[in-house]
Amino acid sequence: MKKRDFLKYCSLMAGAMISGRAGAIAAPVKTTSSMKRKSKTMKLTFIPYELQLKHVFTLATSSRTTTPVVLTEIEYDGQKGYGEASMPPYLGESHETVIKFLSQVNLSQFKDPFLIEDIVAYLDGIMPGNYAAKASVDIALHDLVGKLTGKPWFRLWGLDPEKTPFTSFTIGIDTPEVVRQKVAEAEPYKILKVKLGLGNDKEMVETIRSISDKPICVDVNQGWKDRNYALEMAYWLKENNVIFLEQPMPKTMTDDIAWLNANSPVPVVADEALQTIDDLLTMKGVYSAINIKLMKCGGMNAAYKIALMASGMGMKVMIGCMTETSCAISAAAQLSPLAQWADLDGNLLISNDCYEGVTITDGKITLNEKPGIGITEKIKMFHN
Amino acid sequence: MKKRDFLKYCSLMAGAMISGRAGAIAAPVKTTSSMKRKSKTMKLTFIPYELQLKHVFTLATSSRTTTPVVLTEIEYDGQKGYGEASMPPYLGESHETVIKFLSQVNLSQFKDPFLIEDIVAYLDGIMPGNYAAKASVDIALHDLVGKLTGKPWFRLWGLDPEKTPFTSFTIGIDTPEVVRQKVAEAEPYKILKVKLGLGNDKEMVETIRSISDKPICVDVNQGWKDRNYALEMAYWLKENNVIFLEQPMPKTMTDDIAWLNANSPVPVVADEALQTIDDLLTMKGVYSAINIKLMKCGGMNAAYKIALMASGMGMKVMIGCMTETSCAISAAAQLSPLAQWADLDGNLLISNDCYEGVTITDGKITLNEKPGIGITEKIKMFHN
Repeated sequence: MKKRDFLKYCSLMAGAMISGRAGAIAAPVKTTSSMKRKSKTMKLTFIPYELQLKHVFTLATSSRTTTPVVLTEIEYDGQKGYGEASMPPYLGESHETVIKFLSQVNLSQFKDPFLIEDIVAYLDGIMPGNYAAKASVDIALHDLVGKLTGKPWFRLWGLDPEKTPFTSFTIGIDTPEVVRQKVAEAEPYKILKVKLGLGNDKEMVETIRSISDKPICVDVNQGWKDRNYALEMAYWLKENNVIFLEQPMPKTMTDDIAWLNANSPVPVVADEALQTIDDLLTMKGVYSAINIKLMKCGGMNAAYKIALMASGMGMKVMIGCMTETSCAISAAAQLSPLAQWADLDGNLLISNDCYEGVTITDGKITLNEKPGIGITEKIKMFHN
Repeated sequence: MKKRDFLKYCSLMAGAMISGRAGAIAAPVKTTSSMKRKSKTMKLTFIPYELQLKHVFTLATSSRTTTPVVLTEIEYDGQKGYGEASMPPYLGESHETVIKFLSQVNLSQFKDPFLIEDIVAYLDGIMPGNYAAKASVDIALHDLVGKLTGKPWFRLWGLDPEKTPFTSFTIGIDTPEVVRQKVAEAEPYKILKVKLGLGNDKEMVETIRSISDKPICVDVNQGWKDRNYALEMAYWLKENNVIFLEQPMPKTMTDDIAWLNANSPVPVVADEALQTIDDLLTMKGVYSAINIKLMKCGGMNAAYKIALMASGMGMKVMIGCMTETSCAISAAAQLSPLAQWADLDGNLLISNDCYEGVTITDGKITLNEKPGIGITEKIKMFHN
């Protein structure tokens, strides 16, 4: 869909107005027409936005320079909560689908934003799938509720901010020269994450190892099809100080992954295979750990439950992300003291972040005491 | 242990002073000596107390007229949180064991009561078992944290207060005459709970059915040993409008219980078999539902996680209790919107409740908006 057609689509879907604001590709869309300042009704507003990547982002299956997101705001009783949907193209959501979903959301039927369980169940009932769209409401709702209690979510969840993990920093698949440049840029980070599965697996790792001995996390994004090759690689990677192997084979190859996990010297982590709690329940013995992402599971409520359940099942937890602003990253970071590993670098890979939130200090996720998800607007996106 | 010896024991354990206050059998015991009013250090105080039962309480394995409890208070920054341990004798805890445990708890090492996960992990690490003692700290901590945020826990958990279940009211094993009297007293309650397993199973149910057609929950407390008898009874109970069958056989008879659950026309609920998350993970297919009690699992933190996990596993949740004051009952009630069934009548069975908290309206649990666990002191127990 061309930009002009897309804006027309927005306009049809939700009565959008076009504004000239840099970065935003459509003006805020209100789902209710009331403009009263201190309403005791929740009002949802949303804006499509395009994230500009600092580097071309290459996975086993695609490469791109931008990521579409939708920014959300829920206003209630003079307080505002912010959320975000991020839609990397391979997950099937887009500006169009998210706006279509959000246009159907009517929060005014709920008398209180604290009714999180009811609201999340309502969102789930609108349409199946659409997890990023659902996450954008869930995150804004959590930000709002945190602000209404005056506490950040890691406090409401009883978590210790000193227990945040170090985040890895992703090195995309590229030529040795670019890889070396990216590794040099990743100097502040203690753990590197490398995407394999495009055929140059050993070359990628050897290139990094030629200039750095930092621990490496490997993400294959389902790129390997042969379990014997995967196991050979697992041993080779272990020798090269790799700490885990994420989604080495297609999620449908359950038996092969279970065999690999049982024999691998490094833990095998589920990413594409894990979306909901139902997925998690089938994973004991197949994977050793899971990668939770807000955009996969529908937001903070589901992510928290999945993290608790996985811990209860004796599995390790990783908290990951898409390319996102500091909004969704800071939301995910609230959970991070529950995780052994984190890959929350999505906001570091973009040049037009419109929020400030959690920071990285010497590679470690650093939570702040701001209420909700701990963010402030860097660029004012919502003019209402 | 005689009362005099017990008081001496308290004194030895934690420097207790004796007071003449009715009901309390020892004065508040402080684990730190500071009396500063607005300290930024958490101070734990505890008092042994004896609950007086309105009726003799008869189970398949024992009967009694009192229940020992220990009341706890955590003070921090001028705010006070209340908790409670209840020790029905068949669970192995007592005034002595709880006081011994609490005397080892040093909360002053934690700079913030919001560090719930760290504090709960610390309590678990002091000694294995001692779940009621752990619950007494966990509940006081939750009450404190709720008060510090100004919100009740059902709000912090995002639960809908309108979704609380009806509570059942327990009719103990007794003569037909007393049973009829108890059923008449239970007039405000919509669901009756009956304890079976002493040989007069059908007589108990028939006595109730002679004067009431309310739905009945059956709790056998591991009293049946023969799965064929259990299945026959399950069919007979179903015909008599029984809605579930709780712990029909000893928890060690896993295969028989799984067989019963697969064939029974009413759901089989785990009670004695369920203590921790590890227990829960083995229960899929063995039981259809679980009865969560704060005193079994160690408090609100564990109970919330178990409830979420059980729901995720597709099991129904019941929230139950021991004989307790309105303190522990109100704490459990915060969770009750997550439960399909509740048996929170422990405070209704005693004559010397020292707290006011959640109430029952037409048989339904009614939460209030007071912060924390929603209680106020009816009798002032802590004079500090």
